[in-house]
Amino acid sequence: MADSVWSNYARSSKGVILDMCGVLYDSGEGDGVAIPGSVEAVKKLKASDLKLRFCTNETQASREKFVAKLQRLGFDISVAEVFSPAPAAVAVLRKRGLRPHLLVYDGLLPEFDSVDKSDPNCVVIGDAAKKFSYENLNEAFRVLIGLEKPLLFSLGKGKYYKETDGLKLDVGVYMKALEYACDVEAEVIGKPSAQFFQSVLDDMGLQSHEVVMIGDDLVNDVGGAQQCGMKGVQVRTGKYRPRDESHPTVTADGMVDNLAQAVDMILSQRR
Amino acid sequence: MADSVWSNYARSSKGVILDMCGVLYDSGEGDGVAIPGSVEAVKKLKASDLKLRFCTNETQASREKFVAKLQRLGFDISVAEVFSPAPAAVAVLRKRGLRPHLLVYDGLLPEFDSVDKSDPNCVVIGDAAKKFSYENLNEAFRVLIGLEKPLLFSLGKGKYYKETDGLKLDVGVYMKALEYACDVEAEVIGKPSAQFFQSVLDDMGLQSHEVVMIGDDLVNDVGGAQQCGMKGVQVRTGKYRPRDESHPTVTADGMVDNLAQAVDMILSQRR
Repeated sequence: MADSVWSNYARSSKGVILDMCGVLYDSGEGDGVAIPGSVEAVKKLKASDLKLRFCTNETQASREKFVAKLQRLGFDISVAEVFSPAPAAVAVLRKRGLRPHLLVYDGLLPEFDSVDKSDPNCVVIGDAAKKFSYENLNEAFRVLIGLEKPLLFSLGKGKYYKETDGLKLDVGVYMKALEYACDVEAEVIGKPSAQFFQSVLDDMGLQSHEVVMIGDDLVNDVGGAQQCGMKGVQVRTGKYRPRDESHPTVTADGMVDNLAQAVDMILSQRR
Repeated sequence: MADSVWSNYARSSKGVILDMCGVLYDSGEGDGVAIPGSVEAVKKLKASDLKLRFCTNETQASREKFVAKLQRLGFDISVAEVFSPAPAAVAVLRKRGLRPHLLVYDGLLPEFDSVDKSDPNCVVIGDAAKKFSYENLNEAFRVLIGLEKPLLFSLGKGKYYKETDGLKLDVGVYMKALEYACDVEAEVIGKPSAQFFQSVLDDMGLQSHEVVMIGDDLVNDVGGAQQCGMKGVQVRTGKYRPRDESHPTVTADGMVDNLAQAVDMILSQRR
C-alpha cells in the first residue's frame, strides 16, 4: 500500500469511527454474515487506547434490534456506541414542530413512536426497501406535492448497498426521484451530513483531525468524513467497486482490503 | 385572455399538434373519461384546413390499443396520426444494434416484439406504473450497473400525470432514480426531445414556425415545442397546476381553459 500519509497519520489519531454494513458484515437473509476478520478487528480496537464509535445510515431496524443483530454475529457493541439517522431525525422534527408522513421500513417505525404523525407537513424517507412500492412512493409524492412548501427529509443519500443476494437500491435513489417530482431539495439526515458526523465527534470528545473514518462507501463515508476534516479510509468489501479508486471527486486517504487490515495497520503504527 | 401574440399567430399557422392525456381525456379506471368539449374540438380541427397530429408520451399500451381506446371515447383518430416514444425507441435500438432490458408496462411489450432482448446491453424504461416495484427497479439497476458503460433510455421524462383517482408519478422520476444510482445521463426518447418533435413536423411537411403545440405539461409539451421553434399553448386541464403560470423558465405562448377554447380561438382567427 502506498498509503504513507494515512499510516503516518494513524500514529497520532485518537479515535476511529466505523461504518457498519459492508465493513462489519454483509446484510442479507436473516442476520447476514460477518465479514471475515471484522469481529476480531473490533475486539482489537476496543482493547487499544483509541476511542471507537459506529456510524451507520442503517434505517431498516431500530437501533436496539440492529445492535442485537450485530451482537448475534459476534460483535462487541452496545446501543450507546451506535449513531444512526432515525434518532437524529426525531430530534429535528421535534425542534421544528414537524409532523412527518413516514416512508420507512416497518422495523424502523418504533423509533418514531413518540412523534405526532397526524395531518403531515413533511415527508421522511428511509431505506424502505420492499416498501418502496409504486403505491407507497405515489402516496409520499401526493403528500409532498400537496404541501404549500414541500419539505422532504432523507435518512441518508446512499445510491446502493450490497446484500448477500446482490446490490440493492438505497434511499438516495428514491430521494432523487421525489426531489425531481416536486422540484425540491431534500434535507439529508445521516452520512454524509456534516452535522451528523459532528454529533459523533462531540460524543467522542475529539477534534475531527484526531479521528479516522473507515467505510465501504467512497462518497458518503470517506468523502463525508474528509469534508469534516477527518481522514477517510475505504475498505474493499461491501459495496466497494474497483472504479471507486479512480473516482472523479473523492480520493480515499487510504485503501485497505478489509477492516482487519485497516486495524492491524493502525495499531502496528502505534506500537 | 391577454394572449394576443399567439392569437395573431394562430391566424397564420398551418398545423396543430395535440398532446393527448390531460388534453383529450383524463386517464383512470377503464378507458378514462373524455375532457368536456375535446371530442368536438378534434372534429372541428379535422374539418378545418389545418394539419393535425397527435403526440403523446403514453407508453402503457401499444399505439393500436391506445388509439382504439380514444376511438371508444368518441375521438376521430387513427394510428397513423399518433406519434409515441416506443416506435421511436425501436428505431434507435435497431440502428445502434442494441438489445434492451425492458422495464415497461405489460401493454407496451408488443411494440418491442421484433427486438432482440437477449444478453441486454442497455436498459429502456417507460411509464411502467405498478410494474415500478422495488424488485423490478432493482433488476433494471443491476443490469445497468453491470454494463461496462451503463446505457439508459427513458421513454419521456415527465414528472407526474393525473388519473381520475389522483396524481401518479411518471417515468421521469424513475429515470432520475436510475441516473443517480449509476452516475449516468439517460437518453430521452419522446417529448421534449427535439428529435421526436421534428419527426412529427417532418410527417406534417411543415416548418416549426407554422405549427402550434397544445398540451397540459408546461415543460415537456409547451417548453419542448418552443425549443423547436413552435408556439406552445397550455390548457388548464390534466396535470395543469396554477403554479405553472409563474414557472421560472417556461412561459406558455398562450393559456386556455381547455382544448375546446383553444380550438375556437384558433379557428375564429381564421374566419
